[in-house]
Amino acid sequence: MGIKGNAIFAQSGGPTAVINSSICGAIKEAAKHKEITGMLGAINGILGVIKENMIDLNKESKKNIDLLKQTPSSALGSCRYKLKDEDYERVLKVLQAHNIRYFFIAGGNDSMDTANKVFNLAKSKNYELYVMGIPKTVDNDLPLTDHCPGYGSVARFLAISVRDAGLDTEAIYTSDTVKIVETMGRNTGWITAATALAREKEDGAPHLMYFPEIPFNKDKFLSDVDKVYRKLGYVLITCCEGLKDEKGEYITASKRDIDTDKFGHKQLGGVGETLVSIIANELKIKARCDKPGTIQRVSSMCASKVDIEEAYMVGQTAVKLATEGKSGYMVILERVPGNVYKCKTNIVPLEEVANKEKKLPRDFINDESNWVTQKFIDYAKPLIGGPLPEYTKLEKHFVKKLL
Amino acid sequence: MGIKGNAIFAQSGGPTAVINSSICGAIKEAAKHKEITGMLGAINGILGVIKENMIDLNKESKKNIDLLKQTPSSALGSCRYKLKDEDYERVLKVLQAHNIRYFFIAGGNDSMDTANKVFNLAKSKNYELYVMGIPKTVDNDLPLTDHCPGYGSVARFLAISVRDAGLDTEAIYTSDTVKIVETMGRNTGWITAATALAREKEDGAPHLMYFPEIPFNKDKFLSDVDKVYRKLGYVLITCCEGLKDEKGEYITASKRDIDTDKFGHKQLGGVGETLVSIIANELKIKARCDKPGTIQRVSSMCASKVDIEEAYMVGQTAVKLATEGKSGYMVILERVPGNVYKCKTNIVPLEEVANKEKKLPRDFINDESNWVTQKFIDYAKPLIGGPLPEYTKLEKHFVKKLL
Repeated sequence: MGIKGNAIFAQSGGPTAVINSSICGAIKEAAKHKEITGMLGAINGILGVIKENMIDLNKESKKNIDLLKQTPSSALGSCRYKLKDEDYERVLKVLQAHNIRYFFIAGGNDSMDTANKVFNLAKSKNYELYVMGIPKTVDNDLPLTDHCPGYGSVARFLAISVRDAGLDTEAIYTSDTVKIVETMGRNTGWITAATALAREKEDGAPHLMYFPEIPFNKDKFLSDVDKVYRKLGYVLITCCEGLKDEKGEYITASKRDIDTDKFGHKQLGGVGETLVSIIANELKIKARCDKPGTIQRVSSMCASKVDIEEAYMVGQTAVKLATEGKSGYMVILERVPGNVYKCKTNIVPLEEVANKEKKLPRDFINDESNWVTQKFIDYAKPLIGGPLPEYTKLEKHFVKKLL
Repeated sequence: MGIKGNAIFAQSGGPTAVINSSICGAIKEAAKHKEITGMLGAINGILGVIKENMIDLNKESKKNIDLLKQTPSSALGSCRYKLKDEDYERVLKVLQAHNIRYFFIAGGNDSMDTANKVFNLAKSKNYELYVMGIPKTVDNDLPLTDHCPGYGSVARFLAISVRDAGLDTEAIYTSDTVKIVETMGRNTGWITAATALAREKEDGAPHLMYFPEIPFNKDKFLSDVDKVYRKLGYVLITCCEGLKDEKGEYITASKRDIDTDKFGHKQLGGVGETLVSIIANELKIKARCDKPGTIQRVSSMCASKVDIEEAYMVGQTAVKLATEGKSGYMVILERVPGNVYKCKTNIVPLEEVANKEKKLPRDFINDESNWVTQKFIDYAKPLIGGPLPEYTKLEKHFVKKLL
């Protein structure tokens, strides 16, 4: 039995299709524990604490709490704010003033940095506070966890979208020959890799994939594209927004100061259009680019059922363990060995995940560095929560030519 | 009872979520009519006829034909090929050689030009041929029909996506303040206008919309954005790929020769990024752009049920009327007056639709030229086939500040 007090829930970093499901799980679990006397929602993550901008979650209807499970984006608001030394005193004051003893934050690498700082702050000031991180990021780049809630849904969105976009290119290739789909993922290729799940037939889209883990080489790229084009007459390529050249510099990143966030991250995007230009100029083939952008990250359209449930589960676990006295950890997912996909939860110290990035392993990328391996497919397939919608596969019996 | 012979089905122009549903309806109707002795599928539209590249649809399984109804893109392949005088003889020869007496083509403005040419060709050569156009275009810019099959599904896709993208911006606005969603639509604002269906609450996204029917004025645009930004702290803007300046020139269109199609249409796109730059440079606010591109056009993810059924119905009607002796017409949808939404079919001569564009009427655009009117909402809402998925609406009871 831990100390009695209020719990606060915060959401941080890029919203996803399932981060509200985690908060839903956390709130519902909290309601079961007498140690938690009240539930507060921090508006816009840690900024809500600093500004004392908080809502009373106990006053929300059961329906509103239930609906969180199927509502995309971050219902409490989010932020990308890096906690500064001068904020510490204020954060502690607010926690004390509102008798907050349980602190839950759902987010990615940067958010775990915030969680870890709050944890260390409380410890150093002897303020009894139970801090737990709830993993969330479509980028799937948090270390130590099998995968991150949010990833399964973006993977499903892109599997369906790239299959559709590929069928589109296959149909209209006599006019629009090459298509690039630019995905998110920042410095890691997890999201781009998930587009492989679109392929259901030999020569199905995507035909080529480019990951930030592999330095982009223009000549190799052009040779790859030309090869597929000569074989099929059309090409669908997926690439990560964060592709880098051989010097380790982003191929395209905004040069505007305004586009660099508080963590020093530059706004990415535009790689797809760059590749379109390269193909048009060098191969003289018409190309176009789709960039679903934040829609892929947050869309409710094809949230993965597995992802929704796991997001809920990590939220529940965070609260349960905090009431049992755990603090300074992030919940992780661990795959249970066996033929049927299943994950259980575990925890790792926040300091081991804060500000760290897990790259796509080399053995998930093929030797040509332009597709994934079966090992990646086996890893990712269960996360999208079931097969893609069924489409026709015409047998196409050609009629004998008479002329 | 018309002449006995084979029917050919062709798909043309940009694939959509429901163009296969039209072909499904047409094939199933054709199977009921003894005049139609065999069914051929032209591969890649009129190019399949010219190249004698055709498949035998009678040899496809019932399951494959049934699944067409829920399969996006153009299963027979498509093209953007403008029929030339020198093709006419060849087209007639192929039709004669295969005893094709029924000619069905699903497509948009350009495709109806093809249909009309084939119709006039057969007539001038006294070759008995029944030609019917099946309307299809996400752009919704075919004249005389209430709306075009394909539009309801892109409208639903964008209503959901823009609502999601808007919630995302609302959540993370402290970091990412302005978002542009660039839509398709070429020279007409129908698709952009459909994003209005995302709004479910006061001040919900989209906050501003820009249509190609209204010349783009940078100062007015900046003043609009600034106004919303000052009120809400964030802005979600939707704009059409085909925005034009006051001289009537595209704000952004590819200047590469390779990007101009056979009808002289230039590849559009890039407006969103242009607006991002304008906002960043002039207002010093961080902005980003989502460009779902062909995914919006062809996605099966949230195809509108109404759209699927209407697409099927226009396909059926085309075949039925051809067997009754009609030729040289395109099927249209007419809204039945009354409180409950319902459309019936009718026909108009192909020459009245070929190569023509229906603009978004002025009374569908508000006085400020940056949103739609209720009249548009009333027009478009039934087409998306039911309400959007239900999301939570937290009441947000703020906790009293203690510090």
